Amino acid sequence: MKTQAAVAFAAGKPLEIHSVDLEGPKAGEVLVEIKATGVCHTDAFTLSGDDPEGAFPAILGHEGAGLVVEVGPGVTSLKPGDHVIPLYTPECRECNFCLHPKTNLCQSIRSTQGQGLMPDGTSRFSLDGTPILHYMGCSTFSNYTVLPEIALAKIREDAPFEKVCYIGCGVTTGVGAVVFDAKVEPGSTVAVFGLGGIGLNVIQGARMVGADKIIGIDLNEDKQALATEFGMTDFINPSKVDDVVSAICDLTDGGVDYSFECIGNVKVMRQALECCHKGWGESYVIGVAGAGQEISTRPFQLVTGRSWKGSAFGGARGRTDVPKIVDWYMQGKIDIDQLITHTMPLQDINKAFDLMHQGKSIRSVILY
Amino acid sequence: MKTQAAVAFAAGKPLEIHSVDLEGPKAGEVLVEIKATGVCHTDAFTLSGDDPEGAFPAILGHEGAGLVVEVGPGVTSLKPGDHVIPLYTPECRECNFCLHPKTNLCQSIRSTQGQGLMPDGTSRFSLDGTPILHYMGCSTFSNYTVLPEIALAKIREDAPFEKVCYIGCGVTTGVGAVVFDAKVEPGSTVAVFGLGGIGLNVIQGARMVGADKIIGIDLNEDKQALATEFGMTDFINPSKVDDVVSAICDLTDGGVDYSFECIGNVKVMRQALECCHKGWGESYVIGVAGAGQEISTRPFQLVTGRSWKGSAFGGARGRTDVPKIVDWYMQGKIDIDQLITHTMPLQDINKAFDLMHQGKSIRSVILY
Repeated sequence: MKTQAAVAFAAGKPLEIHSVDLEGPKAGEVLVEIKATGVCHTDAFTLSGDDPEGAFPAILGHEGAGLVVEVGPGVTSLKPGDHVIPLYTPECRECNFCLHPKTNLCQSIRSTQGQGLMPDGTSRFSLDGTPILHYMGCSTFSNYTVLPEIALAKIREDAPFEKVCYIGCGVTTGVGAVVFDAKVEPGSTVAVFGLGGIGLNVIQGARMVGADKIIGIDLNEDKQALATEFGMTDFINPSKVDDVVSAICDLTDGGVDYSFECIGNVKVMRQALECCHKGWGESYVIGVAGAGQEISTRPFQLVTGRSWKGSAFGGARGRTDVPKIVDWYMQGKIDIDQLITHTMPLQDINKAFDLMHQGKSIRSVILY
Repeated sequence: MKTQAAVAFAAGKPLEIHSVDLEGPKAGEVLVEIKATGVCHTDAFTLSGDDPEGAFPAILGHEGAGLVVEVGPGVTSLKPGDHVIPLYTPECRECNFCLHPKTNLCQSIRSTQGQGLMPDGTSRFSLDGTPILHYMGCSTFSNYTVLPEIALAKIREDAPFEKVCYIGCGVTTGVGAVVFDAKVEPGSTVAVFGLGGIGLNVIQGARMVGADKIIGIDLNEDKQALATEFGMTDFINPSKVDDVVSAICDLTDGGVDYSFECIGNVKVMRQALECCHKGWGESYVIGVAGAGQEISTRPFQLVTGRSWKGSAFGGARGRTDVPKIVDWYMQGKIDIDQLITHTMPLQDINKAFDLMHQGKSIRSVILY
């Protein structure tokens, strides 16, 4: 079949809209009609050429929602008409990662996904006979796409695609880090470094589970208003205090129970660890640092009871947990609407990247 | 009263045996007759002058066992004749640390203890009218000493002082890191960096809880035999492999479930983290690094599911957990006898330090 798609032909070039060829689903695969997709910093990172795993030509996009159109042989958990969110972190429920209680990082299709291919080692996309690579196993910048069954979360049918697509990455990354990885308890104190989309989702996750004090840290004071609306109780502009770690410790009787780094800055990662409370404070790295950069601290920070951890896709097991987050949105426990600042058709997708680079959007969503 | 004690008058000088004056126990305090005490690297660290908290003159020693002689006003949990192990990490069961489920680092007497004083801000020891400081709240290099009630674990009366004194520090630090902090599960894979006393106790802790593979790492192959007897299943000499992290990953299908750094070397701490399994591996820093030294790694190590943590006094809550470890020794679940390589009277205590510095002892115990 043919589908409209935004093709990334090379690093640093604008995407080009083409009618590309899409093969139907093979065994264990599903054809999905994408109805909406967010445009995420990770797409921009890959498009920039800085992503060491990035390969071209490819169809980017990994934060979508849509409808099952057709299932391949052997697919049992989905049928045409089901509403789904694609999962760049799949959940096979069979590999040693899925069967381990401490991780969500299913590895069953990791190697082919990293190469931009379906599990059988081939691509379903092509243009004029030349294969085009998949991206993060999703390729949601295409009106129709093919995914493995294990990489699709089935969600309720009354959830609006143009909102819950954001659960495919940003919402889950932030809310999930709080709920599934840190397991923040009611009454906890929390520090959130960076009040972009991830930081706001960490904040609303912390509010949802009943944190008492949620401290936001950002150089940009314009972010204070929305963060407050999402649950932030205290704000610190690091440029206006002598030492951000001391400022946080002063606000929290010695440090926070949990901290989250949502920027990707290794110096901030250290601050996030060191503002944790002696004895029990846990710091989670969510942001992606530049290639080769390293974090450091004195080991005394760990020996006196702080833990340094990380979070990917919010610790969520996609098929199990993504539908729960959709429920939380539908129940009003978390907000997505205010985070989607722009919508546009696929033809305008390069504008979404421009808005992101200019810091003018939290999330732009492409509507098909 | 008078008591024989080894006094440290200044950094870098040998200890001197004196008959010093000891005041009786004040409110909440207990007079203890020390029957045996280990000589630990931490005593040597303070005596060397490298310990920033070190102060002189002081009576060192923190790894003892003995008998309650007299209790001060208000002491309710102990009576004369009780067998006890002094606790440099007390357990008041009232401070916000004791009441927190994630830490053993009771802070109730932290500030006075750090200054070498009893909780009322004074010392019980003196010589010719000049106060002598306590050390780590214990001062077990004295035949009689005074401690707060909250810094004494009551133990069974059939346990031999000359063995279980080692539970006052080294045994608990190693076994406890496995049992109370890491909570290693049966079937786990474990890497232990450094096969000194702490490393051997980590190994036997891992064996006790049913770890499947226990990999010891040490430059000194002479340590292999005893480590094997204590439960080590595999040995790696880092000088004989290209890369110790790869060697460990090869032995364990991608990395260990738990690793423990028992040396105090920041480069080894990094190896200990990076040899952990993606998704769930946890690394515990036990060793004490030199002042100002820092650990570092790429944050990707954390984002892909490894955790970096620390352990102090094995995560043990002293009054609660030390008696359990005494039971484990008496039940034969752990061995102490082979680790106590030398015994001597207090008069020979400087020989114990010499043996340690020469690497000729695992643990020397002073018998009163």
